[in-house]
Amino acid sequence: MKVPEGYLFNGINCGLKKKSRDLGIVISENPARVVGVFTTNEYKSQSLLVCKNHIKRGYARALIVNSGNANCATGERGYRTALNICAKLAQKLDIKTEEVLLASTGIIGEPLPENKIINSLRKLLSSVDKNKVMDFASAIMTTDTYPKIAARHLNCGGMILGVAKGAGMIAPEMATTLCFLFTDVEISRSVLSSVLRQAVDITFNRISVDEEQSTNDTLLCFANSMRGVRIDTAKKIAEFKKAISGVLQDLAYMVINDGEGATKIIKVVVKRARNSNIAEKIARRIAGSVLFKSSMYGNSPNWGRIISAVGSLRVGIGEEFDVYYGREKVVTNGISLYKKKGKVKKYLEDNFEVDITVDLKKGKADYFLYTTDLSPEYVRLNS
Amino acid sequence: MKVPEGYLFNGINCGLKKKSRDLGIVISENPARVVGVFTTNEYKSQSLLVCKNHIKRGYARALIVNSGNANCATGERGYRTALNICAKLAQKLDIKTEEVLLASTGIIGEPLPENKIINSLRKLLSSVDKNKVMDFASAIMTTDTYPKIAARHLNCGGMILGVAKGAGMIAPEMATTLCFLFTDVEISRSVLSSVLRQAVDITFNRISVDEEQSTNDTLLCFANSMRGVRIDTAKKIAEFKKAISGVLQDLAYMVINDGEGATKIIKVVVKRARNSNIAEKIARRIAGSVLFKSSMYGNSPNWGRIISAVGSLRVGIGEEFDVYYGREKVVTNGISLYKKKGKVKKYLEDNFEVDITVDLKKGKADYFLYTTDLSPEYVRLNS
Repeated sequence: MKVPEGYLFNGINCGLKKKSRDLGIVISENPARVVGVFTTNEYKSQSLLVCKNHIKRGYARALIVNSGNANCATGERGYRTALNICAKLAQKLDIKTEEVLLASTGIIGEPLPENKIINSLRKLLSSVDKNKVMDFASAIMTTDTYPKIAARHLNCGGMILGVAKGAGMIAPEMATTLCFLFTDVEISRSVLSSVLRQAVDITFNRISVDEEQSTNDTLLCFANSMRGVRIDTAKKIAEFKKAISGVLQDLAYMVINDGEGATKIIKVVVKRARNSNIAEKIARRIAGSVLFKSSMYGNSPNWGRIISAVGSLRVGIGEEFDVYYGREKVVTNGISLYKKKGKVKKYLEDNFEVDITVDLKKGKADYFLYTTDLSPEYVRLNS
Repeated sequence: MKVPEGYLFNGINCGLKKKSRDLGIVISENPARVVGVFTTNEYKSQSLLVCKNHIKRGYARALIVNSGNANCATGERGYRTALNICAKLAQKLDIKTEEVLLASTGIIGEPLPENKIINSLRKLLSSVDKNKVMDFASAIMTTDTYPKIAARHLNCGGMILGVAKGAGMIAPEMATTLCFLFTDVEISRSVLSSVLRQAVDITFNRISVDEEQSTNDTLLCFANSMRGVRIDTAKKIAEFKKAISGVLQDLAYMVINDGEGATKIIKVVVKRARNSNIAEKIARRIAGSVLFKSSMYGNSPNWGRIISAVGSLRVGIGEEFDVYYGREKVVTNGISLYKKKGKVKKYLEDNFEVDITVDLKKGKADYFLYTTDLSPEYVRLNS
């Protein structure tokens, strides 16, 4: 696998999980500029709090990530644990503690076993390699069934590599999403930050397995300038933005595709709303409806569940709306075309990826969102 | 079964369902004062719209209810169907069309077979009887596993009888709640309306199976003055209010107890919030969390899911909150007491009804809500 210049990776088992990898590291040969996007949940992992503090510096040299434990609801003690891990790793790398970023994912509410991680640092560091992306990607997995890696090459030289973990959990573990991007171009933090936020908004912010929000969500983007390519013109920035959106789109798709128990990927599209708030609200309500999601699991052409879900919002969309399953119009001006049920059932049975469209015919705002169905397997996995 | 004076009931099969009862009727010998509470869903059943129109009159003589079809998303045609049914029934009873109230429950988006109902009116009316409450109660069921009836007797004489159907569904039917109360006392509409709204607020508005909202929810209360008892003093109103709350509480409990696939009844209590809005918002977020509900199905002591759900609201509850499973404190000042996991697992395994309490320690507002767990069975039944 081709990877950006100047990054070394590794992933090992340190004993948080029984056998599989649970501790990953990425080291940048240069101090890398770095920007981040974090969960807006009021309760945050202690690891995330330390990471947010360190990222203020604007650059970093190393990233350490553990799976199997979220280090959340662990109070002062959890904060000190996270800080100790950074300090010990910094010492071994002969860098500053604040140059280490970290993330944790796994169960909430249990102390993070500090010593297991610290005692494994030597082993972790002894075999870092630019070709060990897959080891890092598998070390950050929780109940993902496969590692998630995506990349884009830039015409102006340089590349972007992305690694993510998805929303999966085994009882009693908690779903979290982590995503890390690495590029070897030179780009200012302010441009990187703006580009990243725009890309996240149309990719990671458009997927939802269960409308639950993690305490640990962390997305970091490292840019280490190793390639000698500067992203500084409007044209180059546009290309970079397209590439980073592409990487995030691929990863988001992999995450939703690997959603717990999912048997379907559903694209919910809301068209011609009065404003984008309403469009987003409606798309999220449909994507969050357990009744709608259950019907999708059963390939059941039950658009009554879309109507009742949208109606429960009381956002005043009136009676003129249409609903489509794929290209099949099933509701026209608020009236059900029930004779389409057979056709729609076949559409649902025949497709793994399906489109649901609500056309409000009120204005110009559109919104889309990817979600999954809700299966008995999802409940079983999370029970 | 003792029933209030002056009401006649019946329930038959008219062909909307294959074999079981699907058409119910209640006739009041006197014109009964009547008040109602309806769904706030933006999309309403056409039957409900006719009912809302007729109830403006302030009194009614008859109630007709069908199960098996919600008469929703059926447009003008559905409205005319509902009106025709009322007119035909009124003709046979020699009363005005507006003196007939009606309700429908079942699948959304299919035309209500008007003739099946109208052709069955003679049969329905031929055997109405004061002892046929159970026939009426079973005729309004969708996938309820048992009819839901409750009653209270008043010290001042008179009684209140309540009949409800719960949130149950078979693919591709839609959950709806219908509830009808009948009393033989004399009470003004304004007092009845005020008492009913207060009683609903602490009973039916405190249960949630899946936080989905029906297009057909209808609660009607009939008072026909047949007993010669007037509810007109503060003391009598207080007694009446207590009795009506008792009936609704019983019915609400039966509805939640019969929730689709439920293996647990969960009382979510939020204590000492800054205001009641925040308390209610938090209770509803927990009751609506598919991850929390899945963990309850598995008797899994995973309070991380409560923390992340509450945190996702970002209502600023700070770090001082405590969480209890039953009497067991599992989070103290935001820090997880993870050693309690064994005890809590046993508490969940040993109890069908469990209490979850979040104590915010910020103010004086409390709120509670009953919900169920989420089981693979729920998904299967609704798929």
